[in-house]
Amino acid sequence: MKETIQTAEILCVGTELLLGDIVNTNAAYLSRRLAELGICVYHQSVVGDSPERLTDALALALSRADLVITSGGLGPTYDDLTRETVAAAFGLPLELDGAVLEDIRTYFTRMGRVMTDNNSRQAMVPRGARVLKNDQGTAPGLIVTDETRSKTVVLLPGPPRELEPMFDTRVVPYLRERTDCVLFSLNVHIFGMGESTVESHLHDLMTEGKNPTVAPYCKAGEVRLRVTAQAENEEAAREMCQQALAHIMESEVGAHVYAVVPSSEGEATLEGVLIRELCHRGRTVATAESCTGGLIAKRLTDISGSSAAVKGGFVTYTNEMKTNLLGVSPDTLEKYTEYSEQVAAEMARGARLATGADIAVSTTGIAGPGGGTEDCPVGTVFIGISTEAGERTVRLNLSPQRSRDYVRTLAASHALSLARHALLAL
Amino acid sequence: MKETIQTAEILCVGTELLLGDIVNTNAAYLSRRLAELGICVYHQSVVGDSPERLTDALALALSRADLVITSGGLGPTYDDLTRETVAAAFGLPLELDGAVLEDIRTYFTRMGRVMTDNNSRQAMVPRGARVLKNDQGTAPGLIVTDETRSKTVVLLPGPPRELEPMFDTRVVPYLRERTDCVLFSLNVHIFGMGESTVESHLHDLMTEGKNPTVAPYCKAGEVRLRVTAQAENEEAAREMCQQALAHIMESEVGAHVYAVVPSSEGEATLEGVLIRELCHRGRTVATAESCTGGLIAKRLTDISGSSAAVKGGFVTYTNEMKTNLLGVSPDTLEKYTEYSEQVAAEMARGARLATGADIAVSTTGIAGPGGGTEDCPVGTVFIGISTEAGERTVRLNLSPQRSRDYVRTLAASHALSLARHALLAL
Repeated sequence: MKETIQTAEILCVGTELLLGDIVNTNAAYLSRRLAELGICVYHQSVVGDSPERLTDALALALSRADLVITSGGLGPTYDDLTRETVAAAFGLPLELDGAVLEDIRTYFTRMGRVMTDNNSRQAMVPRGARVLKNDQGTAPGLIVTDETRSKTVVLLPGPPRELEPMFDTRVVPYLRERTDCVLFSLNVHIFGMGESTVESHLHDLMTEGKNPTVAPYCKAGEVRLRVTAQAENEEAAREMCQQALAHIMESEVGAHVYAVVPSSEGEATLEGVLIRELCHRGRTVATAESCTGGLIAKRLTDISGSSAAVKGGFVTYTNEMKTNLLGVSPDTLEKYTEYSEQVAAEMARGARLATGADIAVSTTGIAGPGGGTEDCPVGTVFIGISTEAGERTVRLNLSPQRSRDYVRTLAASHALSLARHALLAL
Repeated sequence: MKETIQTAEILCVGTELLLGDIVNTNAAYLSRRLAELGICVYHQSVVGDSPERLTDALALALSRADLVITSGGLGPTYDDLTRETVAAAFGLPLELDGAVLEDIRTYFTRMGRVMTDNNSRQAMVPRGARVLKNDQGTAPGLIVTDETRSKTVVLLPGPPRELEPMFDTRVVPYLRERTDCVLFSLNVHIFGMGESTVESHLHDLMTEGKNPTVAPYCKAGEVRLRVTAQAENEEAAREMCQQALAHIMESEVGAHVYAVVPSSEGEATLEGVLIRELCHRGRTVATAESCTGGLIAKRLTDISGSSAAVKGGFVTYTNEMKTNLLGVSPDTLEKYTEYSEQVAAEMARGARLATGADIAVSTTGIAGPGGGTEDCPVGTVFIGISTEAGERTVRLNLSPQRSRDYVRTLAASHALSLARHALLAL
């Protein structure tokens, strides 16, 4: 019977990571995939191209986990040491693998390049190791197992372009035969309620729930709850998540949930949900942006297929443009200033009439860092929504301490959320 | 005399990192900054929100390095444990800091939100610790020092938006007093020449230079060269960097350099340089965007002070809007289709005339993933530039293999670069 793998560690090797020259996307990629397989990751580590530090880090990782996955250090040059270090840790000799050497030769021929001598190092394989073919490069991956200690090390090449397909096509099937449960996660996307308020409404579920767990993540003014259940099969895990979800939806948090997505399908965004619902209903949207300066239009058109739902947009930074392009009355600008609900309403109405869209959203306010007044400090933003039913406006008081980027992002998110509510009310 | 800090470790705390939900950009950011200070990083680690594992990881890191920098786990919720764990490791009691509590209260008042009780946890400070004000959120950072062991832990909040400015403005000055040499770096920003071409022109400088070093970084179609010199004082290091820069500017790379910035001043952007030069010359710009959908306007208005230079912008996804808002002739659309140099030229001209700007830029093309044709595969983008001297256009053939996001970003960057060249020629 095969041993079951329950815990794993990720050990990335490379001085370029320690210098901050590259961001460690491999650790995130491998962690996400392992979570989907129900294998727990409690540690990720990075060491440089030093044999002593790599030996120590490997020993520590093997003392804590059933499985260690390394990335990097399999190349042909003198500072690529992972293969040798793992073989030494397991007391295995390295042997030249003729089939691997032939693969490397073929690769060079196909690329029209000459194979330098140092490349043959990549054909050295610890005795008894399983070789993982590299479809995207020369260095093969390796699976090395110590049956007596029930420990496994998977060695993968560093470049994500090589690591990711190798892991998906060759390592996942290997691991799937050695796990005995399944994890399933739902991402619950919330807008318009802060993290601490969400937690106060769902305190028991978040602190006492063990299976499923409910964990909060914050990102640019949004809160996401990750609901994760562990069970014997996906159906059972999915059902457990649905029960926790029902609890969330019945609480006061429910009214602020704008999307629920299985984590295997990625993440939702306010703009993605709005575009999908616009397309579904055959409706269109337009934008009239002052302080967000094109950000709302940019986010809407980030979404593939948005051309069916986005009629058009205006960026009107100056009063002159608000009047010339959107028909905002000079009297309104004079009487209320450009930072006012009245101007936001006229901007939205103007954009809707000029484009013929079903819904138009507008923003006018002070993103900072300069330009604040006593009545309108930095972070004050007026949002307008116009539909055939008329206009409504909202005043946001975002923190003047926040960055320009934050104020603009939050203002755009509120505008997208309000547009969605207006759509649902049409 | 203060102790000198020579080695550091980075310890990131967060279950979301171990689940692969987010990529660890903090580790890369902190590593890069520490390298600039001449502080060596030999290990990066990630642990979850578990007090036992965090305690062990912290003890291990402190046994190996003079300085440990943590990120994450400083928030208000039950699973934020870094503050408590570090205080316990140093044998220090946590005490309520009245000034910090007042800052948090003020923050909530300003945001118009109610402060929940759990937020006061963030005002608990290990006795004797130095508090680092958080300009972007509620959780302050902390510097905790054990003088007898000559060990320091710096605790930073997890969100990069909070961590990065806190590190730059409050931790760097602290560390600079505790290192014994000076590094000075220049960022040389290049647009319009690929990395391998840049390297072929500057091969000797990049491979053989030891002090200063010249290292390339690629980002969204741009190449940045980082020139770093080490010396006894800043003046000497700066002079060494200037000599390498002279070498770069005399090569063929020089014509593609759009900005040179000391790394302490951050990074330049195409939009930032364009806005600065527009303001300097008292000129204005307008945009007419189809496939970039507001991205150019968004990037221009990312820049504080851009209101003096950005006249206005249009997002015209449909042919109807190109005609109604920008005056593109239906005949041109019929004869050449919307993906053509002719339409790009008329869009730019229309935007310039409608807004009265000195320069207008336009984009029309296919960002993908769908919609490509044989003549115009995905990645084909036409850019138009209009000034009083007339219109000119450029056709970009970006790789159809690239993502929608990449095509839009590159198209916007080319448009910004062309607008800058048009400005310099006015």
